Amino acid sequence: MRILYSGESHMEAVIAVIEGFPAGFHVDVGRINRDLAMRQDGYGRGDRMKIESDRVEIYSGIINGMTIGSPITLVVRNKDVRRESWNPEDRRTIPRPGHADFAGATKYGLDDFRLVAERASARQTASWVAAGSLFTQFLEEIGIEIIAFVESIGDVKTGHIEDPFVLKEKIESSPFRIPDPGIEDEMKSLVDRTKEDGDSLGGVFCVVARGCPAGLGSYNHPDRRLDAMLASAFMGIPSAKGVEIGAGFKSAGLTGSGMNDGMEMHDGKVVRKTNNAGGIEGGVSNGEDIIVRCAAKPIPTVRRKIPSIDFNTETPADSPYIRADVCVLPAMSVIGESVMATVLCKSFLERYGCDNMELIRRNFL
Amino acid sequence: MRILYSGESHMEAVIAVIEGFPAGFHVDVGRINRDLAMRQDGYGRGDRMKIESDRVEIYSGIINGMTIGSPITLVVRNKDVRRESWNPEDRRTIPRPGHADFAGATKYGLDDFRLVAERASARQTASWVAAGSLFTQFLEEIGIEIIAFVESIGDVKTGHIEDPFVLKEKIESSPFRIPDPGIEDEMKSLVDRTKEDGDSLGGVFCVVARGCPAGLGSYNHPDRRLDAMLASAFMGIPSAKGVEIGAGFKSAGLTGSGMNDGMEMHDGKVVRKTNNAGGIEGGVSNGEDIIVRCAAKPIPTVRRKIPSIDFNTETPADSPYIRADVCVLPAMSVIGESVMATVLCKSFLERYGCDNMELIRRNFL
Amino acid sequence: MRILYSGESHMEAVIAVIEGFPAGFHVDVGRINRDLAMRQDGYGRGDRMKIESDRVEIYSGIINGMTIGSPITLVVRNKDVRRESWNPEDRRTIPRPGHADFAGATKYGLDDFRLVAERASARQTASWVAAGSLFTQFLEEIGIEIIAFVESIGDVKTGHIEDPFVLKEKIESSPFRIPDPGIEDEMKSLVDRTKEDGDSLGGVFCVVARGCPAGLGSYNHPDRRLDAMLASAFMGIPSAKGVEIGAGFKSAGLTGSGMNDGMEMHDGKVVRKTNNAGGIEGGVSNGEDIIVRCAAKPIPTVRRKIPSIDFNTETPADSPYIRADVCVLPAMSVIGESVMATVLCKSFLERYGCDNMELIRRNFL
Amino acid sequence: MRILYSGESHMEAVIAVIEGFPAGFHVDVGRINRDLAMRQDGYGRGDRMKIESDRVEIYSGIINGMTIGSPITLVVRNKDVRRESWNPEDRRTIPRPGHADFAGATKYGLDDFRLVAERASARQTASWVAAGSLFTQFLEEIGIEIIAFVESIGDVKTGHIEDPFVLKEKIESSPFRIPDPGIEDEMKSLVDRTKEDGDSLGGVFCVVARGCPAGLGSYNHPDRRLDAMLASAFMGIPSAKGVEIGAGFKSAGLTGSGMNDGMEMHDGKVVRKTNNAGGIEGGVSNGEDIIVRCAAKPIPTVRRKIPSIDFNTETPADSPYIRADVCVLPAMSVIGESVMATVLCKSFLERYGCDNMELIRRNFL
Repeated sequence: MRILYSGESHMEAVIAVIEGFPAGFHVDVGRINRDLAMRQDGYGRGDRMKIESDRVEIYSGIINGMTIGSPITLVVRNKDVRRESWNPEDRRTIPRPGHADFAGATKYGLDDFRLVAERASARQTASWVAAGSLFTQFLEEIGIEIIAFVESIGDVKTGHIEDPFVLKEKIESSPFRIPDPGIEDEMKSLVDRTKEDGDSLGGVFCVVARGCPAGLGSYNHPDRRLDAMLASAFMGIPSAKGVEIGAGFKSAGLTGSGMNDGMEMHDGKVVRKTNNAGGIEGGVSNGEDIIVRCAAKPIPTVRRKIPSIDFNTETPADSPYIRADVCVLPAMSVIGESVMATVLCKSFLERYGCDNMELIRRNFL
Repeated sequence: MRILYSGESHMEAVIAVIEGFPAGFHVDVGRINRDLAMRQDGYGRGDRMKIESDRVEIYSGIINGMTIGSPITLVVRNKDVRRESWNPEDRRTIPRPGHADFAGATKYGLDDFRLVAERASARQTASWVAAGSLFTQFLEEIGIEIIAFVESIGDVKTGHIEDPFVLKEKIESSPFRIPDPGIEDEMKSLVDRTKEDGDSLGGVFCVVARGCPAGLGSYNHPDRRLDAMLASAFMGIPSAKGVEIGAGFKSAGLTGSGMNDGMEMHDGKVVRKTNNAGGIEGGVSNGEDIIVRCAAKPIPTVRRKIPSIDFNTETPADSPYIRADVCVLPAMSVIGESVMATVLCKSFLERYGCDNMELIRRNFL
Repeated sequence: MRILYSGESHMEAVIAVIEGFPAGFHVDVGRINRDLAMRQDGYGRGDRMKIESDRVEIYSGIINGMTIGSPITLVVRNKDVRRESWNPEDRRTIPRPGHADFAGATKYGLDDFRLVAERASARQTASWVAAGSLFTQFLEEIGIEIIAFVESIGDVKTGHIEDPFVLKEKIESSPFRIPDPGIEDEMKSLVDRTKEDGDSLGGVFCVVARGCPAGLGSYNHPDRRLDAMLASAFMGIPSAKGVEIGAGFKSAGLTGSGMNDGMEMHDGKVVRKTNNAGGIEGGVSNGEDIIVRCAAKPIPTVRRKIPSIDFNTETPADSPYIRADVCVLPAMSVIGESVMATVLCKSFLERYGCDNMELIRRNFL
Repeated sequence: MRILYSGESHMEAVIAVIEGFPAGFHVDVGRINRDLAMRQDGYGRGDRMKIESDRVEIYSGIINGMTIGSPITLVVRNKDVRRESWNPEDRRTIPRPGHADFAGATKYGLDDFRLVAERASARQTASWVAAGSLFTQFLEEIGIEIIAFVESIGDVKTGHIEDPFVLKEKIESSPFRIPDPGIEDEMKSLVDRTKEDGDSLGGVFCVVARGCPAGLGSYNHPDRRLDAMLASAFMGIPSAKGVEIGAGFKSAGLTGSGMNDGMEMHDGKVVRKTNNAGGIEGGVSNGEDIIVRCAAKPIPTVRRKIPSIDFNTETPADSPYIRADVCVLPAMSVIGESVMATVLCKSFLERYGCDNMELIRRNFL
């Protein structure tokens, strides 16, 4: 399966093309729109989210609600299209530190940082979520469920969670996508205070997949390891600065006997007492919950002044403020759910074939 | 540039084939052997390391010490070759929790866990280091230097380091590859104690690249982001459970104004006061030091008993003990240097062309 | 550079997404539409062509007429969209021999041959031509020109052509895209007669690229050979059954001394007396004209009865007739121009870098 | 499945690394050696073939004769290794027209044409044949048989063959790999005469695969078409200048009703009266014999003088003569068998999964 994403923030649309998805799968388009809405939700979002109310349009690959094996094109139109407003005289020459502006303009030889920001924007993740929703639906059909939730915003942290799946409703109804309603007020006041300060917040979110069969990924080549693929996918989310699997950084302080998840046989099934491995041993899924945790830095665009440079004059200048959210952790966790689904679906199809549902069912079940 | 790695622990050799490396580059084979030796060094290694003393053999792609543009084959022979010892009657039927044994045998339909362990072994990283040494040499020629060092083993941590490059000699002469000789004794006694306990240790290492031009990687597609490629490469190292870039997980607790690395112009050059981004903004290198930190879980194979299952009888059994190291953090940091070099070299060649050094010099310099 | 094409004949659109095209290139959208029109032209087309009059819409990647480095999305809408007409009761159960119907339904587990024919249709080539026009424009900017023309339709053949570029106007104004107006009447009467017969025609077309620098492609790996990439691209055109480079099948009957294109030096430039190699030696462009010839079988859908099977009843049935062209050689030659441009552009960017036009100009010129 | 080939003519070895081949397959190493010997056989070979007598060495991926899922490394050592003979003073500065010399040196910025010829040599195909033998064995296990034979050398052609599989013994025992012993004397005298003339010969060979299930390849993307993949693979064989599928170039002169292979149902099976499609419709295998024909130009290196240039002095010079074969059609047909096996195996594994034989059998049978 190959996927290409495209689209800018203020051009026609963001788009996902998915080549190699099996034929014969029935797609719930309403579910894609629900997942798109979840990406736009969450306390702490700026005005942009009120402008957009994303709906997917199926341009190809799905007929009468069923995939036919051909490439699937998902189009999510932008509401705020600016076809006429790219006057070179209005070009922006001051980059925002923390944003792709400077590095991106260097790469592409651009002298207008607006042109970088068009694509280097969280807007592109709408197309990931549209595609991810398709993959999530596929995974659910074969018995794999995914849940994403926020663990911390700034220094406000949720308590330890035993099983996020039993808290699914709480998570999905929370404005912060946290499983722990007791700290919502604290989070709200942190977000409000930070907004007033003209600043922004980061945090940590967690994504868990349950029901994944053992045998996805491979230790045979570094780029085929499931953990490596997940690390790439999560670190590829805009603002991600850290990724861990299972016990993650904590495992550095454990001993082997404390880390290893002992095995038992119950009713012909392998059972583990712990899941420090986060469901992946040797780069291969082992049948336990797959657990990925991801650290997000705060949104780079803030009202507070950050020293920058006007590249037109090569003189000091304040980083420009452009409409932005204060905290996007809830949205990021939804994106995390999508990228988890994308990686697992890809790995599943590599193992069980990708031509059509009939073959997959014969091979898998 | 495409790379394939192959080779088991007790078959002929581990091998790297590198297709698409530029012609006209002069390779120092002695340097490859030195880097291979560094991978085998370090306090806390087991007996295997005394058996192996790795030397690279060039099977193709380099004539008279110069690359000619054709695929390069690097062969590192195994000393401990067991051509005759794979009697199916001796098959191992008890997997080691924490190791690829169980998940790998499920994937490949194998009923002998020895066959998984042949490839799912740190031995394969010798071929990564051989290739990585070639890439490191290339990067040094164009002005990019990389250093890797250990930050912690178990709960023993080095202090904060201002600039690892000035401590290079200390790091490379330390049995723990730490920049801070004051804690070597503490680390030694921790390793010795753990060895006696029949247990193993994890830790954290850090890799820094200096001199990398702005413009490697891209925000345009998630799999082309430099941070995503680094996350994949580091998480792909056996035992890695966490990866972070720059401030990493700490950035989750910062505000935007605390996180963003303000820019100044000094003598026509962009200068930053901080480097929380770790040299990557929007998935693109920004010219600052690229900083990756990686958490390693303890080696899974320990003398202490871990509950497992004999899959032959489906009854409880202790995880088998197989000759193993107690702590491989120094080696892992060397591997980390290699994977950093691999990712940067690949990204560099994508930007500046990969046919021959003459074209690269014209384009880059 | 990665490209994905998508889209069916009667869904929303056919689409091309191009990831990795350089920034800073100025695109002539009118030219894309002109090239799309050329694909629809030609004597012998059926009714479909009168319905469609393709126009490209830029969904992403181009702002103010300039590429910005981000993925480019080209959308060519279908006029004849059938959102509501996929009633399973109307499913088609008789495949057309010569068409993808049977093989495709087997692959994708489909029981309605209409669903195969939606994608397995020359309609998808509209998106190739849209993308190809972009690549052609790029190649022209760096001095590479491409021309495509028809050599034969059925048994009517053009005479030998010395230099197709001097005949460009003739070719582009000919309803058969032939350089030889003297045989147009003969071709017309053949097409008319065949149409009356309820039959269809194949033919041969030729594509020539001039100005291509030596050094594209590589002998180092079979899939990187320029001739292999061209063979794949041309054989990938619907209805293609044969591809040859330079002297092609004729070279099988030559001796080495008759085949080899002797070299001379004129004014510091390498000059060849012949071009039997078709501009490619050892899988690498050698600076001479690149010449590809492609055989197209006749359109499979004909009014004449072809024995087939009704898979619903497993009884004999006539192959169904569906609106179709009699002869598409002129269109195929235009598509051939596009695939030649696609392969050359890709190979050029691999050699000279793909980030932005400034770097490419520095490296190439 | 990913494959990389490496190795020069006079360095250590030619090598194939195959990543992603299923575990649990039993390999016949003797068969690989037999196939390697077939590549070296044939009337008209030069001295090199007497020097080499290729044997495969398994460096990785196969234990006790069984694949274990890890990357397979096949090494075929060169007999004529020249480690010391690359004195730059002996560099060759006159390219051979028809050979990669000039184009390759331009690509890689080399000033010694010997360095191009090291890799741009038919020697590399030994590693393709070693890998191809593995794939052939796999295909035979699942019921797919392949045969390759020569159709013409120079202007001497075999007659029409009804079914090459019944002539397998004749083909394999013929010094020309022709199914038609009656013309062997004529071919011999042509080869002898050409050798005396200091010239070389080309020809045409054909490869047929029987038993291939319908459903390999796809019309959904041009690079996934089975015909496109075969065209790339065959045109990638050194000296190939033309490729055709089924009726190939002849189909250009047929009408649709003459071309289409009508279908009948016999005993619940689809039967065709003709196979003009060569087993591929719409880029997908249709269950019939897959037929590929390939034109090979004559070997470029000949004793007869070809005008060239000494690039050291920029003056006219004769193309140098280097030990070479007169005619390699028999060898090329063996290579053709290998590339057919490679493409079909890859396509089969994409459809039916590639992890292990057990899963493949469940899915396929």
